[in-house]
Amino acid sequence: MINLKNDYSEGALPRILDELVRTNLEKTVGYGEDEYTKKAISQIKKRIDKEDCEIRFLVGGTQTNLVTISHILKQYEGVIAGKTGHISTHETGAIEATGHKVIEIESDENGKIEVEKIKKAYQEHISYHMVKPKMVYISNPTELGGVYTKKELEEISKCCKEKDMYLYLDGARMASALTSEKNDLSLEDYPKYCDVFYLGGTKCGTLFGEVIIFVKKELYENFDYSCKQKGAILAKGRLLGIQFYELFKEGVYEKVGEHSNKMAKILKDGLKKLGYTFKIETYTNQQFPIIPDEKLKKLSQICSYEIWEKFDEKNTVVRFVTSWSTNEHDIGEFLEKLGEI
Amino acid sequence: MINLKNDYSEGALPRILDELVRTNLEKTVGYGEDEYTKKAISQIKKRIDKEDCEIRFLVGGTQTNLVTISHILKQYEGVIAGKTGHISTHETGAIEATGHKVIEIESDENGKIEVEKIKKAYQEHISYHMVKPKMVYISNPTELGGVYTKKELEEISKCCKEKDMYLYLDGARMASALTSEKNDLSLEDYPKYCDVFYLGGTKCGTLFGEVIIFVKKELYENFDYSCKQKGAILAKGRLLGIQFYELFKEGVYEKVGEHSNKMAKILKDGLKKLGYTFKIETYTNQQFPIIPDEKLKKLSQICSYEIWEKFDEKNTVVRFVTSWSTNEHDIGEFLEKLGEI
Amino acid sequence: MINLKNDYSEGALPRILDELVRTNLEKTVGYGEDEYTKKAISQIKKRIDKEDCEIRFLVGGTQTNLVTISHILKQYEGVIAGKTGHISTHETGAIEATGHKVIEIESDENGKIEVEKIKKAYQEHISYHMVKPKMVYISNPTELGGVYTKKELEEISKCCKEKDMYLYLDGARMASALTSEKNDLSLEDYPKYCDVFYLGGTKCGTLFGEVIIFVKKELYENFDYSCKQKGAILAKGRLLGIQFYELFKEGVYEKVGEHSNKMAKILKDGLKKLGYTFKIETYTNQQFPIIPDEKLKKLSQICSYEIWEKFDEKNTVVRFVTSWSTNEHDIGEFLEKLGEI
Amino acid sequence: MINLKNDYSEGALPRILDELVRTNLEKTVGYGEDEYTKKAISQIKKRIDKEDCEIRFLVGGTQTNLVTISHILKQYEGVIAGKTGHISTHETGAIEATGHKVIEIESDENGKIEVEKIKKAYQEHISYHMVKPKMVYISNPTELGGVYTKKELEEISKCCKEKDMYLYLDGARMASALTSEKNDLSLEDYPKYCDVFYLGGTKCGTLFGEVIIFVKKELYENFDYSCKQKGAILAKGRLLGIQFYELFKEGVYEKVGEHSNKMAKILKDGLKKLGYTFKIETYTNQQFPIIPDEKLKKLSQICSYEIWEKFDEKNTVVRFVTSWSTNEHDIGEFLEKLGEI
Repeated sequence: MINLKNDYSEGALPRILDELVRTNLEKTVGYGEDEYTKKAISQIKKRIDKEDCEIRFLVGGTQTNLVTISHILKQYEGVIAGKTGHISTHETGAIEATGHKVIEIESDENGKIEVEKIKKAYQEHISYHMVKPKMVYISNPTELGGVYTKKELEEISKCCKEKDMYLYLDGARMASALTSEKNDLSLEDYPKYCDVFYLGGTKCGTLFGEVIIFVKKELYENFDYSCKQKGAILAKGRLLGIQFYELFKEGVYEKVGEHSNKMAKILKDGLKKLGYTFKIETYTNQQFPIIPDEKLKKLSQICSYEIWEKFDEKNTVVRFVTSWSTNEHDIGEFLEKLGEI
Repeated sequence: MINLKNDYSEGALPRILDELVRTNLEKTVGYGEDEYTKKAISQIKKRIDKEDCEIRFLVGGTQTNLVTISHILKQYEGVIAGKTGHISTHETGAIEATGHKVIEIESDENGKIEVEKIKKAYQEHISYHMVKPKMVYISNPTELGGVYTKKELEEISKCCKEKDMYLYLDGARMASALTSEKNDLSLEDYPKYCDVFYLGGTKCGTLFGEVIIFVKKELYENFDYSCKQKGAILAKGRLLGIQFYELFKEGVYEKVGEHSNKMAKILKDGLKKLGYTFKIETYTNQQFPIIPDEKLKKLSQICSYEIWEKFDEKNTVVRFVTSWSTNEHDIGEFLEKLGEI
Repeated sequence: MINLKNDYSEGALPRILDELVRTNLEKTVGYGEDEYTKKAISQIKKRIDKEDCEIRFLVGGTQTNLVTISHILKQYEGVIAGKTGHISTHETGAIEATGHKVIEIESDENGKIEVEKIKKAYQEHISYHMVKPKMVYISNPTELGGVYTKKELEEISKCCKEKDMYLYLDGARMASALTSEKNDLSLEDYPKYCDVFYLGGTKCGTLFGEVIIFVKKELYENFDYSCKQKGAILAKGRLLGIQFYELFKEGVYEKVGEHSNKMAKILKDGLKKLGYTFKIETYTNQQFPIIPDEKLKKLSQICSYEIWEKFDEKNTVVRFVTSWSTNEHDIGEFLEKLGEI
Repeated sequence: MINLKNDYSEGALPRILDELVRTNLEKTVGYGEDEYTKKAISQIKKRIDKEDCEIRFLVGGTQTNLVTISHILKQYEGVIAGKTGHISTHETGAIEATGHKVIEIESDENGKIEVEKIKKAYQEHISYHMVKPKMVYISNPTELGGVYTKKELEEISKCCKEKDMYLYLDGARMASALTSEKNDLSLEDYPKYCDVFYLGGTKCGTLFGEVIIFVKKELYENFDYSCKQKGAILAKGRLLGIQFYELFKEGVYEKVGEHSNKMAKILKDGLKKLGYTFKIETYTNQQFPIIPDEKLKKLSQICSYEIWEKFDEKNTVVRFVTSWSTNEHDIGEFLEKLGEI
C-alpha cells in the first residue's frame, strides 16, 4: 500500500542520518551554540545570498510560527492571513494562545492572498477599538499547493512596506515550491521581499527541523528568550545544525523538491488518464483529486490519504502528498489498482 | 578536554540510533499515532506497573512542563514550586507566559521542598485576591542533585490529596535518581504518589524526548489539543516511540543512570582526594565543587563546566555533570591534570 | 447641536444618581459583598424569573465579555461569533489576548447569525489541529440594530445544546431590543435559551455597569478569581448594586428602551421624509442612514455622529444613536436644519 | 459600629459627587476624549510640575497595574517586586495572567524593598534561560504602610537607570504617603524618579479611578490599544475626568491624606494607651495592632477590620484603615468600648 497521506511519514534522507551517526559520540555545547550549527548557518546565508541576517533552527512548523509571530508582535498587534493559511485553521489557535488575533481574509482557490484584500483588511482596522495589523503571513507553497509568482510576492512586499507591516513567509514545503514548474522565485529572492521567513526541513527530508531567517535583524533581538520561553530550544541543538548542513549542501534541497514534484506529476497525469478531476490544479507535491464517495473505502485499501473536504453530495476531495521517498514504481502499481476499483 | 558541562552534549545511545537507522525508510502515520509509539507506551505502562494511565511523548523538558501545567490548571490556579525548581528559575517564565503564577517557596540546600512549607504556602492563599494553589511541582533528582526518599514523596503526596492539589513530578534526570545510592523509590512507586510525572530522555540517552504519564487520567482529556496549540507535536512522532522503546527495554534506563552516577562518584572521590570541598553532597550525576577563582581559567582548559554561583569572595561553585558517555579514563586524566593546576 | 454619536454621552438616569447621592456616606463592605448588591441581585432574579442562577456586576462591556469568555473556556476552546460581532471586531482582540480564538462566521445584514452557519463552522472543526468550538456568542440587539426573534434564539439554543456548546448572549443594549417593535422575547425568556448572558447598564441609563447572569451555575465556580485577575472587581462594589437596583425597579429598564426606540423612530421617519435611505432597516435605538459625502461636513455642524462605512463612491453610511436622554424637540430641530443643508 | 476595614467603604467626597450631579445631563464624547478629562490632565500636569508627560485615567488599581505592566514589557521581560507588593500577592496573578513573571524579592518589615536586593535579583537573571528583569515595581505607601524617603527612592531610581530597567510606582494610597509625618517627597518629585507612576483615587476620595502618568512618554505609544484590549476603557470617560479634576484642585488630595493620617494617629495613640502593641510602626492610614485571639469576637462587634495574619499562638495581627470620612468622635467611642472588652 502506497503512502500518500503526508510527506513526513518516513525518517530522514539517508545522507542526513549517516551524518547523525557519524557525529553521534562527539561532544558539543548545547542549545544551538555548537560548531555544526554555526557551519549550517553560514552555509544557508551563502545559499540565500544574504550575509546580513540572523538565523536559528527550530524543531517544528507550528512552533516556528508561534514563537516568531509572538516574538515580533506587540500584544495589541495582529497578523493578516488567508482563511486557509496554516495559522488560521490548522494550529489549534496557537497564535491566539500567545494573545494575538489572526485577521483572516479570503484566500483564492489556490490558497493565495491578494494585495487588494490585504489593503482592505488594513483599512478596516483604523482605531484602537480594533487590533493593529502589523504583519502579513503567507506560505509558499500554500496549504493548497498554490505557488506565488515573483510579481505577486513583490506586490505583497511593497504593500507591507507602505503600511508598515512585516511580511512573514512560511516555507514548510519550500523545496516543492522552489522546483515547481510554475515557480519563478529563487531562494536568493526571499530575503529581498520578506522580513522574516522559514524554510522547512520536516517535510523536505530531515527528521525534523525548520530554519527561521530574520532578514530584518532588529526583530531578532532577544529571540533566544522567546524560544526558551515557548519550550522551543532543543537541548542537543547540534542535531539541527548537522541536518540542515546536509540539507542545504550541493543542491540536496532542490533535489528533494524536484523528486517530490515529479512523483506528484506522474500521479496527477495518471489520475487524469483514469478520468479523475481535481479540486484545483496544482504543480507541487500536493494533489487534490475528487473521488466518488463509493470508492473511498476501496481507496483506503490501496493507499493512505487524507480526506480534505466534501466536494458535493456524492464526491469527496482527498489529498495525496508525495515526498523524496515516494517512488515511481509504487505510483504505477497504485494507479493500476485504482483503475480496477 | 573532558566535557563536564552537561549531560546532553552528545547524541544518543548507539542502540537507539541503530534502531532509528533500521526503521528510517518505513512509512508510518504521523503525530504519535504510529505502532512504534504504541509499543513504547505499552512497554512503559508495564515498566511502571500501571496499565490504567495515559502516556504521550514530547520533545523537551521545558515544553513538557509548560504544556502539561497549562493544560491542567485553570487560568486562576497556580503551581507551588521550590525557588530552585526548574520552572521557577530556568525556563524564562515559560509557565507565567501561559498565564499561571509559580508560587515559589524556599527549597532546602538539596533543592527539595518540605511538606510544612507547602502547607504554609497553601494556607496563605485563601481568598480570591490570590491565585488558587492547585498543583505542586517537584523534580527528582532536583536541580541540585537532591534525591527524594519514599517517605518524603509519600508525605508530599498525602498533603496534595488533603488540599486537593495535583502532584506533578519532573523526572528529567530520573535515570540518575533511580540508581542513586540514596534512592529507595522504584519506577513502580511514582504512579502511586504522583498525579502526573515525566521521565526524561534527553538527559538520559536519547537524541531528545520526554515521556509524560498522566496517572490521573481525567486530566489528560484533550491533551492533544494543548500539545498542538503549543507547537509540541512532533510530525514524525514515531521518532519518539522508537527511542523510548529502546530506552525502557531490558534495563537500559537503569544502566544509563548507574553509569552516570558511578562516573560522578569517581569524580567526587577524586576531587575530595585533591582537597576540594563541595557546596552540597550529592549522590547523582551532578556535582557542585567549590573552586578558587584563580584556578577557573586553567580549569576551562582541561574541562567544560558550568558556573553555578559565587561561593564567597574568592571561590566559585561550578557544576560538573556526567552522562552515559562519560568514561573513567577521561576522568582519571582530568583529575591528574587538575592536581597540577 | 444634538448628540447622536452614542448612547453613553451623558451621565445616569437622575433617579440613579439621586440614589448614589443618598447613600454616599453609608459604609459598606467592598467588592460587591454589600447589601445593596444583594438586593439588586435578588430583584434581577425575580425580574428574569430565575431564582436558581448566579449573578455578578461588572463595570464595562468588553470587560464583561473577556472575563466571562476566558473564565468559561478551556485554553484550546474557541467561541463562534458573527464577523460583525463586538468581540470579533471592536474589542482590540480582547478575547484573543486571553488566549482564545474567535471563530468568525458571516453575519447577515442585520448582524445576526444563522444556525446553519454555526453548524457548518462546528463541523469544520473536528480534530485537535483546530480549536474546539465550545461557545456561541450573539448579541441582542446586534451591532447593527438587528433583533433576534424567539424562534431564532430557540434554534440557536437548540443547536448549542446538540453540539455541547454554551450560548452566551451580550445584551449591552438589551433595553432597546426588549422594547423594539420587532421583539417577541421577554427577559424571562433569556434564561431558558442562554447559558450565560449579560444585560447592559452603561448604554441603558447607568453611569456604568453590566450585569452578568450565569444560568448554568456550575460555570460560575470561582468566577470571583477570574474577575479579580482581570482587574474587573470594583472596590466600591455597591455602586453597581445601587445603580442596578434602581435600573430594574418598576419598569425603569423598559422605559429607557421605549424612549430610546421612540426617539429613533421619530428620527428615522423624519430622515425618510427628507428622502434619505438606510443601509439597513432597524427597529432599535441605532439608525444607519446613507449620507452624500458632500453633506458630511455640514452634518458635523448640526449633530455628532459616527462614520460607519463607505456606502459607495459618493455616499457614506453614518450611525445615529438615541438614548434615554434624547428629546423630541432636539430631533425636530435637527431634522429641520438637516432639511436645509 | 465603626468601619476600620478599608478606605473604600463609602462613596466619594461630597464635592466630587456634587460635580457629577451638576454635569450629569451634559453630553460629551466617550472614552476619555472629552473636555473634562482634558482639563483634569492639564491640572495634574501642573500639579506634578511636568508638562511633558502622558496621562490616562483608569478605573481600578489592579487594572492599572496589569494594563500598564503588560503594555510596557516585552513577553520575556519580568518585573521585580517585593514579596508583600500588591502585584505579588493580592491580585490573583493578574500580571502572570498577561504572561509576565513577577520576580519576588524580600521586602523589609515595612514592605519596602532595598536597592541591594534589587541588584542581586538583577544579577541572578543573566541568561536567556531566565526572564529579563526590565521593571521594578514599588508602592508608596507600601501594603504595610511603609513610606519611602526621597533618598531611598532616588537610589532605586538610579539603580534602575544603571540596569536599564523602568521604575513603576503604585500610588494607590498616595494621599496618605504624601502627608505622612515620615514623608519628605512632594508630588513634583515623582516624575524625577519614576518612569511611570499612578496616583490613586478609589482609596483617596473618588467613587473610583486611578490616574496613570507616563513620564517616559515613548512607553505610552498605543496605550489606548492596550487599555481597550484589557477592557479598561470606561465608556463614559468623563466620569474620571470630572472626579480627578475635583480631587487635584486646591489641595483636596492633601486634605484627604492629612485627615486620614490624623485619624490613624489618634487611633494608634489610643490603642497604645490601652496597652496594645503593633506588628510594625506605621505613619499612614493603615495600622496593624496585635490583638489577643480571645478578644477578636468582641472586636467584631464594635468595628469592622481585616485579619492580617497570625502573630503567634495566641495573638493575631489585624488591620485598621482610616479614610477621609472617618471621624474623631467614632474613634473615641470605639476606643472606649475597646477598653471594656
